[in-house]
Amino acid sequence: MEKIVRRALLYDFYGELLTEHQKNIYSDYVLNDLSYTEIGVNEGISRQAVYELIKRCDGILEDYENKLKLVDKFLDTNERISRIHDLAEELMDNTTDDILKKKISEIEKISKDIYESY
Amino acid sequence: MEKIVRRALLYDFYGELLTEHQKNIYSDYVLNDLSYTEIGVNEGISRQAVYELIKRCDGILEDYENKLKLVDKFLDTNERISRIHDLAEELMDNTTDDILKKKISEIEKISKDIYESY
Repeated sequence: MEKIVRRALLYDFYGELLTEHQKNIYSDYVLNDLSYTEIGVNEGISRQAVYELIKRCDGILEDYENKLKLVDKFLDTNERISRIHDLAEELMDNTTDDILKKKISEIEKISKDIYESY
Repeated sequence: MEKIVRRALLYDFYGELLTEHQKNIYSDYVLNDLSYTEIGVNEGISRQAVYELIKRCDGILEDYENKLKLVDKFLDTNERISRIHDLAEELMDNTTDDILKKKISEIEKISKDIYESY
Protein backbone atom coordinates (compact mmCIF):
# COMPACT_ATOMS: atom_id res chain seq x y z
CA MET A 1 0.00 0.00 0.00
CA GLU A 2 1.20 3.50 -0.78
CA LYS A 3 2.43 5.32 2.31
CA ILE A 4 0.02 8.20 1.79
CA VAL A 5 -2.97 5.80 1.63
CA ARG A 6 -1.84 4.04 4.79
CA ARG A 7 -1.41 7.39 6.55
CA ALA A 8 -4.91 8.45 5.49
CA LEU A 9 -6.36 5.20 6.86
CA LEU A 10 -4.44 5.50 10.12
CA TYR A 11 -5.61 9.08 10.47
CA ASP A 12 -9.18 8.05 9.71
CA PHE A 13 -9.18 5.42 12.45
CA TYR A 14 -7.03 6.98 15.15
CA GLY A 15 -6.82 10.67 14.25
CA GLU A 16 -9.18 11.60 17.09
CA LEU A 17 -6.53 10.42 19.53
CA LEU A 18 -4.09 13.12 18.39
CA THR A 19 -4.13 16.64 19.85
CA GLU A 20 -5.87 19.41 17.86
CA HIS A 21 -2.48 20.84 16.87
CA GLN A 22 -1.25 17.43 15.66
CA LYS A 23 -4.51 16.80 13.81
CA ASN A 24 -4.33 20.13 11.96
CA ILE A 25 -0.80 19.61 10.78
CA TYR A 26 -1.08 15.90 10.02
CA SER A 27 -4.31 16.31 8.05
CA ASP A 28 -2.88 19.27 6.11
CA TYR A 29 -0.03 17.00 5.06
CA VAL A 30 -1.89 13.71 4.56
CA LEU A 31 -5.33 14.79 3.38
CA ASN A 32 -4.81 18.28 1.97
CA ASP A 33 -1.50 17.48 0.34
CA LEU A 34 0.33 20.58 1.61
CA SER A 35 4.14 20.56 1.73
CA TYR A 36 6.21 20.84 4.93
CA THR A 37 7.12 24.38 3.90
CA GLU A 38 3.53 25.45 3.24
CA ILE A 39 2.35 24.02 6.57
CA GLY A 40 5.28 25.67 8.35
CA VAL A 41 4.33 29.07 6.91
CA ASN A 42 0.65 28.62 7.89
CA GLU A 43 1.48 27.53 11.42
CA GLY A 44 4.38 29.90 12.00
CA ILE A 45 6.85 27.07 12.67
CA SER A 46 9.91 25.81 10.79
CA ARG A 47 9.82 23.24 7.99
CA GLN A 48 11.93 20.99 10.24
CA ALA A 49 9.42 21.25 13.10
CA VAL A 50 6.62 20.23 10.71
CA TYR A 51 8.67 17.27 9.50
CA GLU A 52 9.32 16.13 13.06
CA LEU A 53 5.73 16.53 14.16
CA ILE A 54 4.49 14.43 11.24
CA LYS A 55 7.07 11.75 11.96
CA ARG A 56 5.96 11.75 15.58
CA CYS A 57 2.29 11.43 14.56
CA ASP A 58 3.20 8.53 12.24
CA GLY A 59 4.71 6.82 15.27
CA ILE A 60 1.72 7.49 17.53
CA LEU A 61 -0.78 6.24 14.93
CA GLU A 62 1.30 3.14 14.10
CA ASP A 63 1.50 2.36 17.83
CA TYR A 64 -2.29 2.38 18.06
CA GLU A 65 -2.49 0.19 14.96
CA ASN A 66 0.03 -2.26 16.39
CA LYS A 67 -2.17 -2.63 19.45
CA LEU A 68 -5.64 -2.53 17.93
CA LYS A 69 -5.14 -3.72 14.29
CA LEU A 70 -8.24 -1.86 13.16
CA VAL A 71 -6.87 -0.81 9.78
CA ASP A 72 -5.89 -4.41 9.12
CA LYS A 73 -9.35 -5.66 10.05
CA PHE A 74 -10.98 -2.91 8.02
CA LEU A 75 -9.04 -3.83 4.87
CA ASP A 76 -9.87 -7.47 5.36
CA THR A 77 -13.59 -6.85 5.92
CA ASN A 78 -13.70 -4.46 2.98
CA GLU A 79 -12.34 -7.12 0.68
CA ARG A 80 -14.98 -9.60 1.80
CA ILE A 81 -17.82 -7.09 1.54
CA SER A 82 -16.66 -6.23 -1.93
CA ARG A 83 -16.74 -9.94 -2.84
CA ILE A 84 -20.33 -10.19 -1.55
CA HIS A 85 -21.25 -7.22 -3.73
CA ASP A 86 -19.69 -8.85 -6.81
CA LEU A 87 -21.50 -12.12 -6.11
CA ALA A 88 -24.81 -10.29 -5.76
CA GLU A 89 -24.22 -8.63 -9.13
CA GLU A 90 -23.52 -12.02 -10.70
CA LEU A 91 -26.69 -13.45 -9.15
CA MET A 92 -28.65 -10.53 -10.53
CA ASP A 93 -27.33 -11.22 -14.03
CA ASN A 94 -28.33 -14.87 -13.71
CA THR A 95 -31.93 -14.66 -12.62
CA THR A 96 -35.22 -13.29 -13.96
CA ASP A 97 -37.28 -14.15 -10.89
CA ASP A 98 -38.65 -10.94 -9.37
CA ILE A 99 -38.75 -12.24 -5.80
CA LEU A 100 -35.09 -13.30 -5.99
CA LYS A 101 -34.16 -10.04 -7.69
CA LYS A 102 -35.65 -8.03 -4.85
CA LYS A 103 -33.62 -9.89 -2.23
CA ILE A 104 -30.44 -9.76 -4.30
CA SER A 105 -30.90 -6.04 -4.78
CA GLU A 106 -31.14 -5.61 -1.02
CA ILE A 107 -27.86 -7.51 -0.57
CA GLU A 108 -26.25 -5.25 -3.18
CA LYS A 109 -27.50 -2.17 -1.37
CA ILE A 110 -26.43 -3.28 2.12
CA SER A 111 -22.97 -4.35 0.98
CA LYS A 112 -22.50 -1.01 -0.80
CA ASP A 113 -23.70 0.85 2.31
CA ILE A 114 -21.26 -1.00 4.56
CA TYR A 115 -18.43 -0.37 2.13
CA GLU A 116 -19.20 3.33 2.08
CA SER A 117 -19.92 3.73 5.78
CA TYR A 118 -16.37 3.04 6.93
CA MET B 1 -27.49 -3.18 26.02
CA GLU B 2 -26.56 -4.87 29.29
CA LYS B 3 -23.64 -3.18 31.00
CA ILE B 4 -21.60 -6.38 31.07
CA VAL B 5 -21.98 -6.85 27.30
CA ARG B 6 -20.98 -3.27 26.63
CA ARG B 7 -17.95 -3.67 28.88
CA ALA B 8 -16.94 -6.84 27.04
CA LEU B 9 -17.21 -5.04 23.70
CA LEU B 10 -15.26 -2.04 24.95
CA TYR B 11 -12.59 -4.36 26.30
CA ASP B 12 -12.48 -6.27 23.04
CA PHE B 13 -11.88 -3.11 21.02
CA TYR B 14 -9.72 -1.02 23.32
CA GLY B 15 -8.43 -3.42 25.96
CA GLU B 16 -4.95 -3.41 24.43
CA LEU B 17 -4.67 0.26 25.37
CA LEU B 18 -4.89 -0.56 29.09
CA THR B 19 -1.83 -1.51 31.16
CA GLU B 20 -1.18 -5.21 31.86
CA HIS B 21 -2.34 -4.75 35.46
CA GLN B 22 -5.56 -3.03 34.36
CA LYS B 23 -6.16 -5.69 31.70
CA ASN B 24 -5.78 -8.53 34.20
CA ILE B 25 -8.21 -7.09 36.69
CA TYR B 26 -10.72 -5.76 34.18
CA SER B 27 -10.86 -9.02 32.24
CA ASP B 28 -11.18 -11.06 35.45
CA TYR B 29 -14.21 -8.97 36.28
CA VAL B 30 -15.77 -8.57 32.82
CA LEU B 31 -14.87 -11.80 31.06
CA ASN B 32 -14.16 -14.27 33.86
CA ASP B 33 -17.01 -13.05 36.06
CA LEU B 34 -14.97 -12.88 39.27
CA SER B 35 -16.23 -10.69 42.13
CA TYR B 36 -14.37 -7.63 43.49
CA THR B 37 -13.51 -9.67 46.57
CA GLU B 38 -12.16 -12.64 44.61
CA ILE B 39 -10.03 -10.39 42.41
CA GLY B 40 -8.80 -8.51 45.47
CA VAL B 41 -7.67 -11.75 47.10
CA ASN B 42 -5.90 -12.91 43.90
CA GLU B 43 -4.12 -9.60 43.39
CA GLY B 44 -3.39 -8.88 47.04
CA ILE B 45 -5.31 -5.60 47.02
CA SER B 46 -8.48 -4.45 48.75
CA ARG B 47 -11.98 -4.93 47.38
CA GLN B 48 -12.29 -1.14 47.25
CA ALA B 49 -9.11 -0.83 45.18
CA VAL B 50 -10.49 -3.37 42.69
CA TYR B 51 -13.76 -1.45 42.50
CA GLU B 52 -11.95 1.82 41.83
CA LEU B 53 -9.64 0.33 39.24
CA ILE B 54 -12.57 -1.12 37.31
CA LYS B 55 -14.40 2.18 37.45
CA ARG B 56 -11.29 3.92 36.17
CA CYS B 57 -10.95 1.40 33.31
CA ASP B 58 -14.61 1.94 32.41
CA GLY B 59 -13.81 5.63 32.09
CA ILE B 60 -10.69 5.08 29.99
CA LEU B 61 -12.47 2.69 27.62
CA GLU B 62 -15.55 4.94 27.29
CA ASP B 63 -13.24 7.86 26.48
CA TYR B 64 -11.74 5.91 23.61
CA GLU B 65 -15.20 4.96 22.42
CA ASN B 66 -16.37 8.59 22.58
CA LYS B 67 -13.51 9.53 20.32
CA LEU B 68 -13.38 6.57 17.94
CA LYS B 69 -16.96 5.15 17.99
CA LEU B 70 -15.71 1.71 16.97
CA VAL B 71 -18.16 -0.28 19.09
CA ASP B 72 -21.01 1.76 17.61
CA LYS B 73 -19.79 1.10 14.07
CA PHE B 74 -19.22 -2.56 14.86
CA LEU B 75 -22.78 -3.04 16.14
CA ASP B 76 -24.15 -1.26 13.10
CA THR B 77 -22.09 -3.31 10.63
CA ASN B 78 -22.94 -6.51 12.46
CA GLU B 79 -26.63 -5.85 12.07
CA ARG B 80 -26.24 -5.30 8.34
CA ILE B 81 -24.06 -8.37 7.86
CA SER B 82 -26.60 -10.41 9.74
CA ARG B 83 -29.33 -9.09 7.39
CA ILE B 84 -27.23 -10.14 4.37
CA HIS B 85 -26.88 -13.59 5.87
CA ASP B 86 -30.67 -13.86 6.38
CA LEU B 87 -31.34 -12.72 2.82
CA ALA B 88 -28.89 -15.29 1.46
CA GLU B 89 -30.71 -18.00 3.40
CA GLU B 90 -34.03 -16.85 1.96
CA LEU B 91 -32.54 -16.87 -1.55
CA MET B 92 -31.27 -20.38 -0.98
CA ASP B 93 -34.76 -21.54 0.02
CA ASN B 94 -36.20 -20.00 -3.14
CA THR B 95 -34.01 -21.41 -5.86
CA THR B 96 -33.11 -24.81 -7.27
CA ASP B 97 -30.54 -23.53 -9.78
CA ASP B 98 -27.12 -24.98 -8.92
CA ILE B 99 -25.14 -22.05 -10.29
CA LEU B 100 -27.15 -19.61 -8.19
CA LYS B 101 -26.94 -21.89 -5.17
CA LYS B 102 -23.16 -21.93 -5.36
CA LYS B 103 -22.92 -18.12 -5.37
CA ILE B 104 -25.53 -17.79 -2.62
CA SER B 105 -23.66 -20.28 -0.51
CA GLU B 106 -20.50 -18.20 -0.90
CA ILE B 107 -22.38 -15.10 0.30
CA GLU B 108 -23.64 -17.07 3.30
CA LYS B 109 -20.12 -18.19 4.11
CA ILE B 110 -18.48 -14.79 3.77
CA SER B 111 -21.16 -13.03 5.83
CA LYS B 112 -20.79 -15.65 8.54
CA ASP B 113 -17.00 -15.28 8.45
CA ILE B 114 -17.19 -11.51 8.81
CA TYR B 115 -19.65 -11.82 11.66
CA GLU B 116 -17.34 -14.21 13.48
CA SER B 117 -14.09 -12.43 12.73
CA TYR B 118 -14.88 -9.34 14.78
